[in-house]
Amino acid sequence: MEDPYIRLPHQIQNFVRFCEMVVKASTIKKITLITDYDDKTQLADLQDKLGELQQSLLELDVVLDIRFHPNMHDWEIKLDHGWIIKIGRGLDFYQRPNSWFEVGANDLNLRKCLETKVDIFKV
Amino acid sequence: MEDPYIRLPHQIQNFVRFCEMVVKASTIKKITLITDYDDKTQLADLQDKLGELQQSLLELDVVLDIRFHPNMHDWEIKLDHGWIIKIGRGLDFYQRPNSWFEVGANDLNLRKCLETKVDIFKV
Repeated sequence: MEDPYIRLPHQIQNFVRFCEMVVKASTIKKITLITDYDDKTQLADLQDKLGELQQSLLELDVVLDIRFHPNMHDWEIKLDHGWIIKIGRGLDFYQRPNSWFEVGANDLNLRKCLETKVDIFKV
Repeated sequence: MEDPYIRLPHQIQNFVRFCEMVVKASTIKKITLITDYDDKTQLADLQDKLGELQQSLLELDVVLDIRFHPNMHDWEIKLDHGWIIKIGRGLDFYQRPNSWFEVGANDLNLRKCLETKVDIFKV
């Protein structure tokens, strides 16, 4: 997965949720995240959080490989059997709920979305 | 649902998750929550949070009726077609994750549990 914006807590959470979905739905062995950061990013903190995710995936026998790639801007998921998924906004297409105690605060299937395009194709 | 402990943020969140599950899985029209509080409960704050949940359910045409019942201690869910569900620990049987960025932080299907008994029966 290429995603330049896994920096803010909710963006990291989106990626955690993505990993949870993948772990439940498949027999995946490895996830490679290619991402970027900028001057405002607290890099040590980001690496700590991603490290915690990495460790928890390892306990489920899934390797999370994280690579920082400067000046990237595209978003895509490439699966190893040839499918490519592109979302205009990446994973960051959910609206912030009005309240953290409303229906949809936890379950994104019930959360309002922002407008975005999803392309799924095989190469 | 009778649950004396819908007070702490994570207990309220468990109930929000319960409502999300119910809304997705059924054509339910009404949820009645019978609960309690004690001297330490910030009642106005609790009522605010439950009010936000109530409002969001109403937008999905589900009425949430909340009743406070002093000195209750049992936990159960009673469905209107006669099924009763009892969990020793109520909804509060998930372990706190080591990190909020680990797999299972969001998806309770991947979260470690505490030991508890679940009885489901029809009367």
